[in-house]
Formats: sequence, structure tokens, C-alpha cells
Amino acid sequence: MVVIMKERASEPQIQAVIAQLMDMGYDVHRSTGANRIVLGAVGGGHGDPQIVEVQDGVQEVHRISVPYKLASRTFRPENTVIAIDDVRIGGDEVIVMAGPCSAESEEQVEASAAAVKRAGAKVLRGGAFKPRSSPYSFQGLGEPGLRMLRAAADRHGLKLITEVMEISQIELVAKYAHVLQVGARNMQNYSLLRELGKARAPVMIKRGISATIEEWLMSAEYVLAGGNTQVMLCERGIRTFETYTRNTFDISAIPVVQQLSHLPVIADPSHGTGRRDKVAPMARAAVAAGADGLIIEVHCDPDHAKSDGAQSMFPAQFERLMAELRIIAPAIGRSLCVEPVARRGWNR
Amino acid sequence: MVVIMKERASEPQIQAVIAQLMDMGYDVHRSTGANRIVLGAVGGGHGDPQIVEVQDGVQEVHRISVPYKLASRTFRPENTVIAIDDVRIGGDEVIVMAGPCSAESEEQVEASAAAVKRAGAKVLRGGAFKPRSSPYSFQGLGEPGLRMLRAAADRHGLKLITEVMEISQIELVAKYAHVLQVGARNMQNYSLLRELGKARAPVMIKRGISATIEEWLMSAEYVLAGGNTQVMLCERGIRTFETYTRNTFDISAIPVVQQLSHLPVIADPSHGTGRRDKVAPMARAAVAAGADGLIIEVHCDPDHAKSDGAQSMFPAQFERLMAELRIIAPAIGRSLCVEPVARRGWNR
Amino acid sequence: MVVIMKERASEPQIQAVIAQLMDMGYDVHRSTGANRIVLGAVGGGHGDPQIVEVQDGVQEVHRISVPYKLASRTFRPENTVIAIDDVRIGGDEVIVMAGPCSAESEEQVEASAAAVKRAGAKVLRGGAFKPRSSPYSFQGLGEPGLRMLRAAADRHGLKLITEVMEISQIELVAKYAHVLQVGARNMQNYSLLRELGKARAPVMIKRGISATIEEWLMSAEYVLAGGNTQVMLCERGIRTFETYTRNTFDISAIPVVQQLSHLPVIADPSHGTGRRDKVAPMARAAVAAGADGLIIEVHCDPDHAKSDGAQSMFPAQFERLMAELRIIAPAIGRSLCVEPVARRGWNR
Amino acid sequence: MVVIMKERASEPQIQAVIAQLMDMGYDVHRSTGANRIVLGAVGGGHGDPQIVEVQDGVQEVHRISVPYKLASRTFRPENTVIAIDDVRIGGDEVIVMAGPCSAESEEQVEASAAAVKRAGAKVLRGGAFKPRSSPYSFQGLGEPGLRMLRAAADRHGLKLITEVMEISQIELVAKYAHVLQVGARNMQNYSLLRELGKARAPVMIKRGISATIEEWLMSAEYVLAGGNTQVMLCERGIRTFETYTRNTFDISAIPVVQQLSHLPVIADPSHGTGRRDKVAPMARAAVAAGADGLIIEVHCDPDHAKSDGAQSMFPAQFERLMAELRIIAPAIGRSLCVEPVARRGWNR
Repeated sequence: MVVIMKERASEPQIQAVIAQLMDMGYDVHRSTGANRIVLGAVGGGHGDPQIVEVQDGVQEVHRISVPYKLASRTFRPENTVIAIDDVRIGGDEVIVMAGPCSAESEEQVEASAAAVKRAGAKVLRGGAFKPRSSPYSFQGLGEPGLRMLRAAADRHGLKLITEVMEISQIELVAKYAHVLQVGARNMQNYSLLRELGKARAPVMIKRGISATIEEWLMSAEYVLAGGNTQVMLCERGIRTFETYTRNTFDISAIPVVQQLSHLPVIADPSHGTGRRDKVAPMARAAVAAGADGLIIEVHCDPDHAKSDGAQSMFPAQFERLMAELRIIAPAIGRSLCVEPVARRGWNR
Repeated sequence: MVVIMKERASEPQIQAVIAQLMDMGYDVHRSTGANRIVLGAVGGGHGDPQIVEVQDGVQEVHRISVPYKLASRTFRPENTVIAIDDVRIGGDEVIVMAGPCSAESEEQVEASAAAVKRAGAKVLRGGAFKPRSSPYSFQGLGEPGLRMLRAAADRHGLKLITEVMEISQIELVAKYAHVLQVGARNMQNYSLLRELGKARAPVMIKRGISATIEEWLMSAEYVLAGGNTQVMLCERGIRTFETYTRNTFDISAIPVVQQLSHLPVIADPSHGTGRRDKVAPMARAAVAAGADGLIIEVHCDPDHAKSDGAQSMFPAQFERLMAELRIIAPAIGRSLCVEPVARRGWNR
Repeated sequence: MVVIMKERASEPQIQAVIAQLMDMGYDVHRSTGANRIVLGAVGGGHGDPQIVEVQDGVQEVHRISVPYKLASRTFRPENTVIAIDDVRIGGDEVIVMAGPCSAESEEQVEASAAAVKRAGAKVLRGGAFKPRSSPYSFQGLGEPGLRMLRAAADRHGLKLITEVMEISQIELVAKYAHVLQVGARNMQNYSLLRELGKARAPVMIKRGISATIEEWLMSAEYVLAGGNTQVMLCERGIRTFETYTRNTFDISAIPVVQQLSHLPVIADPSHGTGRRDKVAPMARAAVAAGADGLIIEVHCDPDHAKSDGAQSMFPAQFERLMAELRIIAPAIGRSLCVEPVARRGWNR
Repeated sequence: MVVIMKERASEPQIQAVIAQLMDMGYDVHRSTGANRIVLGAVGGGHGDPQIVEVQDGVQEVHRISVPYKLASRTFRPENTVIAIDDVRIGGDEVIVMAGPCSAESEEQVEASAAAVKRAGAKVLRGGAFKPRSSPYSFQGLGEPGLRMLRAAADRHGLKLITEVMEISQIELVAKYAHVLQVGARNMQNYSLLRELGKARAPVMIKRGISATIEEWLMSAEYVLAGGNTQVMLCERGIRTFETYTRNTFDISAIPVVQQLSHLPVIADPSHGTGRRDKVAPMARAAVAAGADGLIIEVHCDPDHAKSDGAQSMFPAQFERLMAELRIIAPAIGRSLCVEPVARRGWNR
């Protein structure tokens, strides 16, 4: 760590900090500037920079290493590509995952899956266990929902991603889903992350609404440290003072994470904005910024959805968006599902 | 709900919204103002205001009821007082909980417990299962830590509060602790909250670093709805743009929650500021603002603490703080542990 | 306004609020729901909703009209297009403004102007009066800087945009610039905005780093209310908890403002991110989201710039970006400077 | 500055950064740690750390000096006390400034001044030029308002503080007011701050709603650098995601600023909360945290105030608050106006 002393730090204060750093196992370099002393703590030491920061005479302390290792580009310079059969996430193709917020019925799952497949999605999304902020709201269909989702995915040649909310659900959800999703509210549920490190399925970790990029990468580190190397990240909006949109969709996080880490980054413009009419512009923006994939809520009848209806697209809106994305992707040297199935007449 | 139409909303748009509201089961009142139409949806309807908000011609939609029921002052006008033997949280006395971040050893737990008791604390705090943002950090001693904490609490006539991180730990932790703490990162771990609703021990729910006051009360609602009426809330700082302090300690949340809810509100100035030298002024401020209690990290040797050392007070600092608090509490008609044990010479 | 009473509001409390609303000149509609009373205040009244909100028995108050009039789409449904000779801002073409943060010397201004023209920019940006957070930093060249900027713009067939910091500078700056820029820190300098309402030149108002979209539109309203209809808005990043980027570039504000207002929206990815390597992805994202234009810092020698060097692009980076943008714009039915001047070999 | 290189930075990258630092005039110390290189740039160099940060191979750059000089405790270790005749701001006594948001009429000013004097205030607050977010709102009475305020202050033996919004008003306002206030929205109006550096009256700088503590101190630096040493700071709430209160009153900023700077810190709980019923707890909290003074909106008839009525206290509320503050101040070794004038019966 690097310790910057206050301008008027006394020699005994400086000596006390040096002693503390050496006690932590560091070698200490002392640099004397015009106005102040800087101490560089190097070598194999180990200690909490914040404890040094509250010592007398200390102005600031900075770590010199990042706290994540396995998630960093230094550890693995090339991109991680997660392959689920022929669907490759993190490669040249921008992968689109789409579907309803929750499984509600056989018909709704089937109609939604058919619609997203037709438009070019490769992965079906949909929840069976829903984390709801009210104990009185619809909480998901549970295992029957998982079964419906997987059956529809299989019928349409789609892969399935769905959320796992707690340790006891992992085994069950992994029987049905190709990718296990960790929700934003569970991003720092370390017990859950540790168990997912032992799973064999790919894991997608959504960014907590107030998580820094570093904290998000640390959550990935938990899973990676457990031995599961198939981790992808998902930006879904952060909480700011602006309330017009439900969250502020932090598109700049996409290139930032891609520089710091080798893991694929997916963007979720549905939760990122919370309003159906803002999903298309933000989906286009995310692809233009370099996202490796998108996850979008599409419902066959959004106005009667049991959850997230306001941010779910109509199938026809989703089709138009996919056509726009096919123009944008090549601008950054990527492709997007070049051959959609022949369309029939979907109308809003 | 109240639906405010746009100034130029057409009659067909208005009719479509009325139809949708009636379809949701509402009676609709139409008010015609100078420039725009307002629709009041009353009666026994049920539907998602956000779905109405994205309809054509709609400007804004406002709920007319709050989403929490059991946590509200409307449900229970008088204050909830949580009694653990003779320690009454939410009554006239301001209750102070103090102790180390984590149990580290028999000696450290004993020395810290003795110190906080001597200064006038009524409850011992300390963790045995620690949620750490790095998988490589100290994760707590587990059950042996719980045993040390309870033994020290009993020796000194203190009650014990400690964190429970996952469902599978509830039974174990409840064997040792008088109060089960839900950490800020688990505030929206609804599976955990639902199980705690079945527990018989009091539960303290820390506010998530980006949780609104309403979301925080909804987390309490989960526990209350499960049948556990002994819930208290803990303000511990929110995440803002300001980085000098680790968090921004939102003292105004204390009177706001006390107005909206009957549940006791505890303040945690240690996590609220992250710096030992700012704990005392913020503890004083919280009591002056009306907090029902404080939870403060005190360690017998903070500079060698395994976690949170920078924000842990020295015993002598804590004693001085308690003396200041005894002066402040009467300004708002409260008391604070009037008869501390005779002091011996603690020095920093 | 709509007044939602508390569930247990008493009849005298309700009557007191009704009397207050009538005293403010409103007609009052009373709706009785299952659990609570809602009062609709309509007609030609006038009063502060916040005063009603603090009355006994009141739960919430909502305005039913937006506070800006001239800036709203209701007032003017069609897009405002600002024409400066043949440069049309707010039309089909995405207009790019580019150039150095500050004018530093004849050579630097000329080299930068030549570079941005060659890549396809239509407007030269550059400052002569700089608002610097330190009184000890370079504050700009003043009028000689303005003269250099205008001469270079004229030589290359570019228009000029530059910042005006105070009322006494308006006349001078308007002699040289085609567009007057109001900086983010002056967004709520109402005295300045009022004077700019009397100017004849177009005005670009940057969003304050913590301004809500409504506050930003209110600043435009100040200029419009003064009689100057040529106003454009510029998103340049908001302050959030995330510190990796200098600001969080709020791309979702672009479609939101375009829905609420008829004014053109420009995006500034240079200030929006603060890092040269993040400007290109965010510029692409802004165009994909529908921005009417971009304003980008480009410097002939960024590593020696007197201000904002870290976020200034090299000319070669800017050329590559313009090529990418030409692919993206058609995806949303727009164009971008189809015929750039023949390129010569710029290298970084 | 301290430059931390990336773990895999190449030797040519390191050499390029060293050359750049030397080019900026620094001496460079190179420290080789286990995994990465740290470069310490010391001596009389001068350059923008952000330019170094975007070079290839650089991970992070940290300044080693704070950007403010005259405002820092290093420059002046003892507290600044601002004396206006016998009113000493920054000394042992907590000074209370109170009065209406705006001067509205002779009667309103007189009644409000009498009320705040009776309760123990030492300074009258009140505005004549109001920065309003809407061009259609009441903008203040101008010079007649100043005249009323000063006359009432003189009649009651109070000092006067009022806001100055632009350079052209300074001379006029200084004729009437003892203290010139810079509003939160003008905190970074550097032209205004520079002129106030030439004024002879004390200046109070309110913190911008999204200003960091460092930016706030830099605004003080502008005034101090101009030669005016009588500067005080005023915390008035910051903008966060929480919307229940109008702002989040950042009480922790009080002890933080007192540690970094020698300037007095005043707290404004009226703007800090925006709701009359939260002003008293936050005023108590600010004094308990160590504020040197308070500035509070009190109006003789808040429900009919032309501005800020919802956050203005009734005279009787203010009297009760002053009584509570007299108990709290001694807890931290301070006093608060020990001999209020004999009270007569104020009722709400």
C-alpha cells in the first residue's frame, strides 16, 4: 500500500506508521517530497489499509493491488467464452436472451418463447422463483414453472436462463436451466455465491443496484474461487438521484468491465430503465457500446403480465429492435443472429 | 391509484385507461381540470400502477396506499417495545449495544465485553459468521465464536446480538443469541426474511446501503407477516457520491421511520462513517435525533482487529462517549443507563 | 394537485385541508376509497403543494401539471430544429461538434480544427473562459482565445460553440460564437439564464451533474421564457456513487428528454466518462440511443493539453469513431455527414 | 503524485511514464513490489494526474497533496473565529441564525424578527433576491426587501445574513447585510466567488447539493485566495437516491470539515430536510455533532409564506427547539445563548 502522510506529520508519527507497516510484514520505502512524506509498503505484507488510515498524521492510504485475482484480465488476458452447445457467449456474436419476467402458464410461456425465437433470440429467460419486494405479491410458480420453461425452450431450440434465489434451490434449478442467474439483490449473498462456485452450470451475476464495479467483480471472484470458471456479468441499472427511469442504466460499465476483466458482459435494458418505451434505445446503445449480449423481457401480453409488465416488450417491438441491432453490431466488428426465422404477422 | 393524463390526451386514450382500471376491479372517478383529466381508481381493485403508467396518454400514476401494512403506524399507533428480560428496546431508555466486529479469541471477547459493560452498554455485539466482500478474508469463527460471545455476555450480564447470514444458520445462531441481526447486504434476501418470520427471537434488520425507507419497511413487513412481531430497524449509512466517509449516515431516517412505523430504530455510527474518529459525533447526533438505541463497534485492541479495526473505538473513547450521551438524552425526554459500573483506569 | 390523506385522517383534518385548498383558489373533488380519502384540487388555484404536504393527516401530495410549459412537447409537438446557415441541429443529420477543451495557442487551435473538420465535424468547440475548480489553474485565454477559435472555424467552414460564464461576457462571446454554451455548474445560475433569454444566438445548456431531468428542462424554460427559442440541451454525465468513471453518462436521459420536450439533445461523452478510452463506446451508444448530436473533445496533442487532456481524443481515434458512427446512424433512420473530406494519414 | 502500474506493465511502458513525469518536472522514485511497480513523483513538478492515468500500463494515479491551501488546517491550525461586533462565529458559543425564507412585507419581517430574537437567535436570515427554479415564481422584493430586513435586524439587535446571487448585486447587498451568503446553486459560480474575495464582509458558502467536501473547500479557497479571510461554510443537505426528505442532511460532513479546515461550519436543517417536522431533530443532531452554528427558517405564518413554507418553523416550535439545544450544547463543551429574553405566550 502507499501511505501519504499529512504535511505537518511529526517524525514520531511517521516512525509509528513505519513500525506498524513492518509489523504487518511489509518492506517500507520512504520518499521525501517538498511538503510531505510518502511511504510505500511493498513485499509480502498483509493488513487492512483502513487501519493505517486512521493513525495520527496519516492523510490517505491507497492499495496498490486490486482485490480480485481470478476475475482480472491480468490473470487471464484473453476473453472468456462460455459455450452452451452452439451458443457461444463472449465471442463474436452478440447473444440475445429474451422472454417473460415469470412463467405464468403453459400458454404464456409457449407464446412468449415462440415469439422471441422467431425474432432471433438464442436463450429463453423466465423466472419460477421471484424475489418480490412485497410478501403479498406473486412469488412464482416454482418447479412447475421451471418445467414449462425448459419444455418451451427445448421445443424452440433455445437455451434457458433462470434465477436461483437460495442455496436449497440450486440443485433443482440446475436440473432445468442452462444458466443460473443471481439477482441484483443477491449479488452480495456470499453464502449463495460460494455454493454456486461448486456448481457445474454457467452463472450470470447481476450487478447490485448500488454495487461498484469492483464489488461486482468481487462477487464473480467468489464463484470463480470455488472452481466454477463459467461466469458472466450483467449490468441492469444503478440507483441514482434521477427517478424518471426506475434505475440509471450504466452503459459505461460495459467497456470498463471488459477492460478490467475477461468475463462476458450482458446488458439488461428492461430492468435498466423499467419502461417498455425506453428498452429499444437502451438495447441499441448497449450493443453499440460493446455488450456481449442482451437480456430482455418480452411477454406475449404485457398488459396482463403478473410481474414487470410495464417493462416487458410486445413481440412486434422486439422484432423491430432485433432488426436495428443487426445494423449496429457490425459497426463494432460483431454480428447478431444473421438468419432469423421467417416472420409471420405479429402486431401490437 | 390516481392517474394523471397528459394535457393532450385524446378521449379514446382516456376511455382505454378507464377500461383498463375497471378491468383491474376499480371504481373510477373522473375529474376534469382546466388542462387535464385526473382519474381516481378506488374500491377493491388490484393491479400494477406501472402497467397503467406506460399506456398512451398517461403522464403519471400514483399509488394511494403504502405497500406495508403491519409495519405502519396506522396498523399499530403505539410504539413497539421489545423486552429481553429487563432490557427494553423502544422505551424511554436509549439502549446501547457494543462490542467487537468479530469474535476472534476468548481473551479478545472477554476484554471487549468487560469494557463495554463497564461503560454502560446493555447488549454485547459481535459476529461469528462474517459476510466479507472478499472470499480470501477472515470469515469468522463460526459456532466456537458464538459460544465465546454468549459466555462473555452471560458473565457480564449483557444480552447478545449477532448476525445470521443464511437460512441454515438460524437454528444454531438462535441457540446463542438474544437478537438475530440481518446484515445490510441481506436486507432483501427474502428467503431469509421469510424464515426469520417463523423464529421466536427478536430480529434487527439493517438498512441496505441503497435501500429507500419504504424498501426497508417492506423487509420488516416480510418478518412481521411471518408472525414474528419483535422487529427493530437499524440505520447504518447509505451510499452516496461522497467518499470521504465510507457511507453517508442518514440520521434524518431516524425521525422519518419513527413517524411512519411503530418499530424501534437503532443507529450504527460505526458502519455509518467507517472511521473511528467520526463515531462519537455521529453517535451523539443519532441520540439527539431520537434514536431508540445505538450499536457501536468497540474492540480491546482495534489496531490488531481482524475486521473493521478502523471503525472500532478504543474502550476509553467509548467511555467518554457514554458520558456525553448521558447529558444529551434528557434533552429529548429520554435516559441512558444512569448507573454505570464504577470505572477503572482505561487508557488509549 | 392530488392530496392523499392518511388512512386514519380525522374528519376535522380532512376539512382543514379542503379549506386550505379552497383558500388557494381550487375547486375540490373528494373521493372516498376503501381505506382513505383522496382530494383532487382542480381549476385555477395557485399554491405550494409542499405546504399542503406538511398538514396534519396528509400522506402525500402530487402536482398534476409539469412546471415547464414552453419546453414541453405539449406546447410544441414537432421537433425544434436550430439552423445555423446549413448546419441543422435537431433534424435528420446527427451533428458532431469537436475540438479542444481550451484555446491554448494559434497552432493548437488550427491543428485541432483542421483535424476535426477532416473527420467530418460541423462545429468547432473550444473554450476561452474556463470555469476551473481551482483558483490556481489555467483560466483560459479570454478574448484572444475567442479570436483564434473563430478564425480557425471560418478557415475550415465550421461553426463555433463556446462557453459563456457570466452576464458581463455575453456580448463579447456572442461576437465570436455561433452557439453560446452554459456549463453544467451554471445550469442553475438563473441570472445568467435570464440574460441569455434576451440573446439572439442559440444556447446549449449542459445538464448539471446532479440535476434531475425536470430541473434541466426548467433551466431551458428560463431562456425560452425570455424570448430566445433556440435552445438545445446537452447530457454530460451525472454524479453517482460509481467512481471508476468521472461521471455516470446517463444515456437514458436522451430518449426521455426527447419524449418530454421538442428541444434537440446533444451528448458529451468526453465529460460523461472523463477517460479518452471510454469516449468512443459512449459516443456510439449515444447515437444508437437517438442523440441529435455529439460534442467531443479532440486535441492535436492531448498529453500536453492545458486542461482535460485525459479525456481528449487523438485525431486518429476521432476519425475511427466517425467511421463507426456512419454505420450506426442509419439503424435509427438518421445520417451522419456522409462525405468527409479525403483523409490523409493520421497516426496516434 | 503516486503512479501504480498494472501488474503486467512492460518495461517500455514504465519508461514512458517515467519520462512523462520527468518532463512534468518531477523527480521519480521507483519501488518494485512483488507484483507491480509503484512510481513516486516528488519535487517541484506540475502536471495533471489524469493525463498520466490514461497512459498504457498505468493502473491508478493518486495525488499526494490536497488542492486547497488557505482553507486547510495545515495552513492555519487554530480555528477561524468571525466576529461581527459581539457575535463570534466559530468560538465557544453555538450561533443561531433564523428568520423567513424571503422578505415579503414590513409586518412579516418584523413579526419574524421579533420571534427569533425572543427565542435567542443572534442573526436574522431572510432573502431579497431569490434563486427560484421556475421563472414564473416569486423572485424576491429586491432592495426594498433588504431595507426591511436590515431595519428589523437593527430594531432587535440582530445581525443580518442574506444571499447575493450575482456580481452586480454585491455592492448593494453589502450595504445592508453583515454576512453575504452564496447559495448552493452558486457554489461553483467561480466568477462570483472571485469577486467576493475582494469584499470586506464575511461570506457564508452553502454546499452544492452534489458537491464533495473537497469541492466545497475549493470554493472557499477561491474567496480566501482573493484576500477575504472571513469565510464560513454551510451544510444544507446533499442529493441522494432517498426521496422521502428533500435532501439527505449530511451531518457527518460537520466533523469532517472541522478536521480538514479551520473555517466555521454552520448547519441548515431547514433545507437539509425540507419538512418542518424534521427540522428540530436534525438541528439537535447538528449541534450534538459539533456544528458552530445553525441557520433555520422561521416564519410568523408559514402556511402563507411565499416560499419555503413547508420547511419554515412556527415561532413556538423554534422556541422549544432552542430550549432543547441549550441542554445539548454543554455535552460537547459549548454554550448556546444562555439568557433568552423573557418569553410571552406563543402558540402554534
